[in-house]
Amino acid sequence: MTKVKKDETVVLIDENYNKYLISTGSKTDKYKGIGVFDPSILVGKEIGKQIEIGSKKFWLLNPSLQDKLQGLKRKAQIILPRDAAQIIMNCSIESGQKVLEAGIGSGSLTTALANTVGSNGKIISYDNREDFIKHAMKNLKKANLENFVETKLKDVTKGISEKNLDAIILDIPNPWDAVEHAYKALKPGGYLCTYSPLTSQVENTIKEIKKHNFIEVKTIENIQRKMVVSDKGMRPSFDMLGHTGYLTFARKVL
Amino acid sequence: MTKVKKDETVVLIDENYNKYLISTGSKTDKYKGIGVFDPSILVGKEIGKQIEIGSKKFWLLNPSLQDKLQGLKRKAQIILPRDAAQIIMNCSIESGQKVLEAGIGSGSLTTALANTVGSNGKIISYDNREDFIKHAMKNLKKANLENFVETKLKDVTKGISEKNLDAIILDIPNPWDAVEHAYKALKPGGYLCTYSPLTSQVENTIKEIKKHNFIEVKTIENIQRKMVVSDKGMRPSFDMLGHTGYLTFARKVL
Amino acid sequence: MTKVKKDETVVLIDENYNKYLISTGSKTDKYKGIGVFDPSILVGKEIGKQIEIGSKKFWLLNPSLQDKLQGLKRKAQIILPRDAAQIIMNCSIESGQKVLEAGIGSGSLTTALANTVGSNGKIISYDNREDFIKHAMKNLKKANLENFVETKLKDVTKGISEKNLDAIILDIPNPWDAVEHAYKALKPGGYLCTYSPLTSQVENTIKEIKKHNFIEVKTIENIQRKMVVSDKGMRPSFDMLGHTGYLTFARKVL
Amino acid sequence: MTKVKKDETVVLIDENYNKYLISTGSKTDKYKGIGVFDPSILVGKEIGKQIEIGSKKFWLLNPSLQDKLQGLKRKAQIILPRDAAQIIMNCSIESGQKVLEAGIGSGSLTTALANTVGSNGKIISYDNREDFIKHAMKNLKKANLENFVETKLKDVTKGISEKNLDAIILDIPNPWDAVEHAYKALKPGGYLCTYSPLTSQVENTIKEIKKHNFIEVKTIENIQRKMVVSDKGMRPSFDMLGHTGYLTFARKVL
Repeated sequence: MTKVKKDETVVLIDENYNKYLISTGSKTDKYKGIGVFDPSILVGKEIGKQIEIGSKKFWLLNPSLQDKLQGLKRKAQIILPRDAAQIIMNCSIESGQKVLEAGIGSGSLTTALANTVGSNGKIISYDNREDFIKHAMKNLKKANLENFVETKLKDVTKGISEKNLDAIILDIPNPWDAVEHAYKALKPGGYLCTYSPLTSQVENTIKEIKKHNFIEVKTIENIQRKMVVSDKGMRPSFDMLGHTGYLTFARKVL
Repeated sequence: MTKVKKDETVVLIDENYNKYLISTGSKTDKYKGIGVFDPSILVGKEIGKQIEIGSKKFWLLNPSLQDKLQGLKRKAQIILPRDAAQIIMNCSIESGQKVLEAGIGSGSLTTALANTVGSNGKIISYDNREDFIKHAMKNLKKANLENFVETKLKDVTKGISEKNLDAIILDIPNPWDAVEHAYKALKPGGYLCTYSPLTSQVENTIKEIKKHNFIEVKTIENIQRKMVVSDKGMRPSFDMLGHTGYLTFARKVL
Repeated sequence: MTKVKKDETVVLIDENYNKYLISTGSKTDKYKGIGVFDPSILVGKEIGKQIEIGSKKFWLLNPSLQDKLQGLKRKAQIILPRDAAQIIMNCSIESGQKVLEAGIGSGSLTTALANTVGSNGKIISYDNREDFIKHAMKNLKKANLENFVETKLKDVTKGISEKNLDAIILDIPNPWDAVEHAYKALKPGGYLCTYSPLTSQVENTIKEIKKHNFIEVKTIENIQRKMVVSDKGMRPSFDMLGHTGYLTFARKVL
Repeated sequence: MTKVKKDETVVLIDENYNKYLISTGSKTDKYKGIGVFDPSILVGKEIGKQIEIGSKKFWLLNPSLQDKLQGLKRKAQIILPRDAAQIIMNCSIESGQKVLEAGIGSGSLTTALANTVGSNGKIISYDNREDFIKHAMKNLKKANLENFVETKLKDVTKGISEKNLDAIILDIPNPWDAVEHAYKALKPGGYLCTYSPLTSQVENTIKEIKKHNFIEVKTIENIQRKMVVSDKGMRPSFDMLGHTGYLTFARKVL
């Protein structure tokens, strides 16, 4: 039996699976989706149980990466967890690595990357909009991941000052303009990934990638279908996101 | 400039992107896909360069997770990296966790999981076939991940002795028979995942899941399309894997 | 140059591509989406031109099958044109054939079938709800196809009185209960098709089909993606219908 | 009970569903997939029955459109029936229409189109390779559809001499070069369709289409998944064709 501690971040999940990251050290306030309450009342409660706050019920859990991603507040369009999963897998990102991303957006991919590289690693995140950086770092702070992330107010197409990076992820409108910088900043064997909704973006990026010593160049589209399962049977959901973005990967050699 | 060291595992990648994991401490022998050679000649060579062995050319790199997965020898059908990525993301698996999988198969998912939980974590892998366990552990040893994995010659539908697990992944024909055991073995907030090719397997599993205190139950199908990009334009690949398996996720609460 | 004639059905297409089937012989009235107007003013106008009615602009055309399908008013869920196309192709439906469908729904598939078999053919449509039959026949009348369709207020699972049919299309919740009747009613070489959203429906239907002398049994899922093409590039639409229904086909032999 | 007549075309379907179109008026010969036999022995046999020829069994049927398409011999890559179905539906092609296609390829789309427009209609087929025309017309003759098709040894990008066409289907590498000719040759309300594997082809074609008075411009990708259904359950087929071509549609107005 695990109990909630003082100054701990927990997640409250309501019956529609909306998620709220809360630090038990926060003050009494009005919390969106919960109402006015004092987070310190959670201290000592049992992790895993459903509790009542006001007239609503919430499951009380230690936040998983999924909770952090789903509890995140959006300002810009985000890279969805389904694509973040493919990025992490295809770039072989793991604990201890040094990874650059541009731009930071709402910090969704940043959250997934920071959670993966952990305290021995580092995410460097470039964005040329200060408001995005501020908003994303608020999300990362809530998720207790802000110490693994270093932000720079900088346009990645103007150059990358880091060296020997394990991976570089570009989610910008013109990734081709950063390919040469990325090549120089990667370690041998390091991965470049670009995320682009349009086919023309992919074509331009691949054209630029081919000018440098990259191997294992590939572009994939990742499609996810929800299945609806009931007592009567099973079917794909009628409701579907038809497209997110094309993922292009390449790996630096000398 | 990084140079290959003594007793280090490197990956040799040929021009068709076939990958060979080699320890520089191994003896002169006939290596499949390479031919007869003495791995110690690699010591001192520069990481990232293309080298010649016999009449073939190979890029010489430190092995990434992708290299470990692609260099793996198959005995049974494997869970593909694309699905492993979704499993790790949707189960929020991260460094330091304790995760159970059954069965081990060829050790492909095991490799991805072990690489994720790292030296502070542990993968417990059940299989009722000793030959699969032996074969998989050979793959894990080659990938230097064998110390993060504990195997048990055991049928997971007969019971799970571990407690407080972060996640349980079932890739067996009858996952529904292990759902109750899984519920008991998971920590509150822990994730159950089942991987099943058939819709009937999903239906039976969901029926069993609904008998226990699981939330966030969902089933997805993950489809990946390769894009072919050339100077003339871009198109989805004609060649495509039409289906792998349905992924069902559920999360334990009290 | 073709001009609109008296007592002719035309289609008016507004700039959002909403379509209105209008007979120039109809009286002045309030027409949904057009407003109050006298259809006889269309007589003599040139087919293909954009005209003004009130403050709105409409292209004036002879109605194609697409216009008939898109101008149709829905009461029940319909079989979409994309699936109707696969049904017609896989059942080899053509001019002059005698085809049975059940149920009639809003008459969408009926419209496509009637347009295909034409004046030498016949569509027999069973439905056990009189309101559906009435509503569907209104749609067919607007499309000038009502003479090619014969409706019966009848439950197809209770028996089929027709013989030697070229094809039978079942869009009912329990198609398996009509498979035996369908076998008897089809000509040798005739096609049975069932349309079902759920996998369990497909499984039950196939089980029943296998008890009779059917060959070329197959089930397909037809997925359509819209592509968004602009000056900046091309991508699949974010907005997508994730599923319609599974189409099962079988062919009678002796 | 229907019996095979003299000088009639029937289809023989073996147990792997290979299909052979045979005229009972043909002479004794060696027929591919059947062996040496005298087609006149089929006269008087019952349609729908399975018969033996040599050591093989065949179902004996009147050929449907599916049989004609599946019995067709390929010389060039063909437009598959699944895409032909969408072309016919989205261009509203029906009995009695005059439709132009370019090129003829192996005559697969031609077969589907000719079968649809029937004896009151006409398919005009341009190709700049005489060998393709000859090969395709052999296929059409076997399918008894040769009288509905008129071929021209001509490059469609050099001009179209026909006027007032109901639809024009372009399956050529550079459809944009024929868009202006197509606009002139179509009747008001007539449909243009282009079939292109590459996204760049679609982009160029749409750019040209926008220069003329076309409405209802759209591009779709049609994906078909086979489902494997057995007693144990159901799943999508592992084996899948990942892409055929993008279908672009547009409709002429004045």
